[in-house]
This record gives sequence, structure tokens and C-alpha cells, in this order.
Amino acid sequence: MPPWAGPTRWGICSAGKISHDFIIALKTLSAQEHTCPPTVAALLAPPQHSIPQSHTPSTAPSPTAVPTATPILHSTAHPPHNAAPSTCPRTTPHSTAPLFCSHCPQAFWTRFFPVSGRIQTLLAQGALGQVKVVRAAVAFHMSNVPRLVEKDLGGGALLDLGCYCVQFACMVFGGEKPQSILASGFLHETGVDETTSIILNYSRKRQAVLTCSFVVNLPNQATISGCITQGEPTAMLFNGERWECPLPPPSQPLNFERGTGLRYEAQHVRECLLQGLKESPIMSLADSELVASILDEARKQLGVKYTQDQCN
Amino acid sequence: MPPWAGPTRWGICSAGKISHDFIIALKTLSAQEHTCPPTVAALLAPPQHSIPQSHTPSTAPSPTAVPTATPILHSTAHPPHNAAPSTCPRTTPHSTAPLFCSHCPQAFWTRFFPVSGRIQTLLAQGALGQVKVVRAAVAFHMSNVPRLVEKDLGGGALLDLGCYCVQFACMVFGGEKPQSILASGFLHETGVDETTSIILNYSRKRQAVLTCSFVVNLPNQATISGCITQGEPTAMLFNGERWECPLPPPSQPLNFERGTGLRYEAQHVRECLLQGLKESPIMSLADSELVASILDEARKQLGVKYTQDQCN
Repeated sequence: MPPWAGPTRWGICSAGKISHDFIIALKTLSAQEHTCPPTVAALLAPPQHSIPQSHTPSTAPSPTAVPTATPILHSTAHPPHNAAPSTCPRTTPHSTAPLFCSHCPQAFWTRFFPVSGRIQTLLAQGALGQVKVVRAAVAFHMSNVPRLVEKDLGGGALLDLGCYCVQFACMVFGGEKPQSILASGFLHETGVDETTSIILNYSRKRQAVLTCSFVVNLPNQATISGCITQGEPTAMLFNGERWECPLPPPSQPLNFERGTGLRYEAQHVRECLLQGLKESPIMSLADSELVASILDEARKQLGVKYTQDQCN
Repeated sequence: MPPWAGPTRWGICSAGKISHDFIIALKTLSAQEHTCPPTVAALLAPPQHSIPQSHTPSTAPSPTAVPTATPILHSTAHPPHNAAPSTCPRTTPHSTAPLFCSHCPQAFWTRFFPVSGRIQTLLAQGALGQVKVVRAAVAFHMSNVPRLVEKDLGGGALLDLGCYCVQFACMVFGGEKPQSILASGFLHETGVDETTSIILNYSRKRQAVLTCSFVVNLPNQATISGCITQGEPTAMLFNGERWECPLPPPSQPLNFERGTGLRYEAQHVRECLLQGLKESPIMSLADSELVASILDEARKQLGVKYTQDQCN
């Protein structure tokens, strides 16, 4: 039996609020299938937030102590995000560091929710007809959060919130590259993007219209033509009927609403490991690259430049 | 007592489906306040649709037979819309032909719904804070309707559906002129606009993001920041509470859903007449001109040209 056929032993790279919620989310899954032993929790940075005691390592372990087939949750801020996987062991082809960490586990957790699965099934069945218009918005008033506002932290609504809208459009249009990208919005006084809307035009007269902002709360809905409204990632409307897939209650207080929804992504990673897959069929590396390229173009049109842009 | 202090005697200019619904809507108001006697119903074109019998003139009257203080519902198609008021009498300053007909009664009926009034009150009270983002969409699958599709009839989603989104944004932003207008979309094979999204940027980093289409059904929602979602013109969400103002049931079948909602506009016209107003304080001529200028710019960016554009 390969080592990854047993319990999936999670490692944590950087301890923050999402890491905390992720561990709570793991606890909603079978303890026989998901574990996060203290000895594999790698802390790149000193913990700023409380991590559930039973999963907190007494000392930061050496990354080389992480056993094989350990998926790593990379919950660093944006600037060290790219470098983080290189600190994790690559001694096994089943380490998820190069497979999932850079795109799956952090940014696009909603793609693994049952609602997203149902949407993809409906799309595949043709139940939505030819999708002509996708509208989505993700906006939270978070102008007091340094991660959103500070340029050196890779701030800006596009990278933190807009990525959810973009990945949703990419999912619905099957990973197709848009024919044109038009972005318009406003910069914050720190030089990062504050509010942005993007119009993506696709082949066959199809369009996605996306909005993100960190200075306002929006209902955070996604609409596919008129057939589906996804009010939140645990509910959707289709043909006038509401379909819900509620989350299990957390065993401890969460930092973020619906934090236990990270469970679906964790379970998906485990299923990929069990099947020996090196790439997620739900969110491929190409999918991540497409989302990143759209966000890059939107940032360029808005005039947001990070230090890292100048290095390239 | 001035003649307009009595019942408001409505005239109908062009008999169509909306005219039919308008008369049904009048019947939901007091018969002592709103009448539509056959002798004042001016038919510019032969009726193509059934008009309630009691309000249908046996013969098309001369426009000069229309008495003073008669508001005229202009429900013509787009091309004769501009010319229609000139055929109505202007012998009284209280004729509504030059006051309301060209902008109020046809296109922007939703502005007179109680929900719109409540939104304006909340805005005036500052209950919504500083509005940063407005998102609205109006789209119905009507590619089989000549009025939408044919260029000679002034077709296109912008003029028929997008105008509702644009007027909503103009209402929320208090009639302010946008600093920039960005439109992107697709043309139908007839050369009119099929699906369009518009990003309007306003001063102080405020934005409206609007979508209209005649090839898809959308939920037709309007959202002001995150505070209000107007699912339909008779309901809204504010601070998590749903507020509804249902329409009275029609006495006869309607052509359009919520057709009796035209009652609010009719009542507003009457109130303006009673106060001797020459212009609606809820939808001024300047408001209409602003909406038209935004739609014109969007059409220009999309490349939609009517014969009338070439004449100017």
C-alpha cells in the first residue's frame, strides 16, 4: 500500500487565520482520513493567530521532517507565496506542494463546494443551454486589513477577491481564453486596486462581467445567464428552485464565515492522492494560469505595479 | 378650479401592448381621479393589439379634440417617438405632452415604484452611506420580437432594456454625469446591440456596472453597494430584511408581468398636474437627457448606427 493510501497527513505552511479555519475544517472530515499531526506542521513565519492546540507544533519542524505524501496548505501572504513551495520537500511525486499548493488550497476553495460541482454537472449536461452572460461580484469592506491595502503585501482587491470572480467565469466557460479583457476601476491611495470591474468577451458572443472591491460590501452573487444564481457558495437557484448544501458546524469558532467549507478542497486533494493524480482535474494548473493572466491584464490596465512586476 | 383639478383624462398615442396594460393599470386607481374616455384616445397608428373595449375610441379622433390638461401616454415604437408629441395639442401649459411624454410614461416606469421611492429616501437620509458600487442587469430573451431586433424599428437591447439600468444608476448617483463610459458587447446579425455591459466611473471612486441583453434571461437585479438588492421593482432587501410592496391584481389579463405597476407613474403625473408642475421632480428632462447621452455613447462604442444618427 502506498503511503498516501492511509490517512492524509496535512502540513501547514505559515500559520494564520485561514490555517486555523482549515484545521477546524479538517475536523469535520473523518479523522481516519485527514490528520494534521504537530510534527508535520511547518511554520514559515511566527504564528500571529491561534492555531487549535492539538494541531500546533511545540517547535517549528524542519521541512525535511515532513513525510512523503503530505499535502501542504500554503496560507502565506502573497509576496512569499511563490517561494514557499520550494521550502517544502519534493522527494516524492505525491507531495502536493508542486501539485496543488500554489493554486488550489488557498485561493479557489469555492470551486470545490458541492454547488460548484452541481453547476459543472448542469453545464456538462447542457441543462443551462448555451451560456451567454456570467455576472459575478465579490466585495468586502476590508480597507482596514493590511493584506488588502498595503502594496508590499501584494494588496489590492483583484488578487484577494477578484480572483474568485475570474475563476468562476473561467470555470463556466470551460477554461476558454477570453477574446478581450476590459478593466476599469480606481486605485487606493497606496497604489493598489480598490474597486474594479472587468468585462471579458468570449467567442460566440458570450460575456462575463465581474466586480471586486475592498471598500464596499456586495451580496457576492454569481449568475450564469438567468438560470442560476449562486447567492453564496452553499446555495443556488435553478429554475426557481433553491438548492442548499449547508456546511457542518465548526467545533471551534472560525475566523471566516463558512471556513469549514475548506473541507471540500481537503477531501478533493485526498482523492487526487489516492488516485495518484499529479494535477487536480477540477482546477488544473492551466486553469490557475488563465486566472492569473486575466488578473495581470486587469492590473496592467488599472496601473497597479508591484515590486515583483518590475523584477520581471 | 383649474380643469386639471378634476379627473385626469388620459389620452393614448399609439395603441399597443403597453397601452393596453396602462389602461388596466389606470383601473387600479380611483375612477374619480383617472379616466381614459374614448373621445380623447388618439391613435397615431392602427391598433395591432386589443385595447380594453370601454377605453377604445370608435374612430381615431382629431388631436385637436383632446381637451386641456390631458396627459398623453406615448407608447409608439422608437422611430416615431420623437415626432409623436408634435401631433398632440400644446394649447395649454398643462398638457403633459411636452412635460412628461417623451421620457416619463414609457421608459422609466420603475422609477415611480414605491421601492424606488424608498431607495431615494434612504439615499437622502444617508442610510446607505456613501454608495461606491451600483450593479444592475436587465435582460430578457426576446430575439423573436421585431421591436428588439430590427434596426429600422430602433432595435437593440440598450434602447429597450439597458435604459432601465442606466436610469437606475443615474437615480442612485443623483443625476451626476459619469467621468467615463466604457461599453463592450456584441452586435446582432441585424446590426443592433445584442448583449452589452457598461462600466460608468463617477467622481470619488464610484462605479456603476450595467448589463443588458435580448438573448438571455437574467434575474434583473439592481444592487446598491451591498446594502440593497432590488430583486424586482416590487421588492427589496435592506439590512437583511425583505420589504415588499405588491401590485394590485389586474382586472383583465396583462400583456406584461407587473403591467399594473404603470399606476405609480400615472398617479405621479396627476400629482404633478395638480401642483401645476411643468416637469417631474422624480424624473426631470435633464435626467432623461443624461440617460440618453450615456446610451448614445455606449451605442457609439459598440458601433450601432441608426438611420437617424446619419441624419444628425
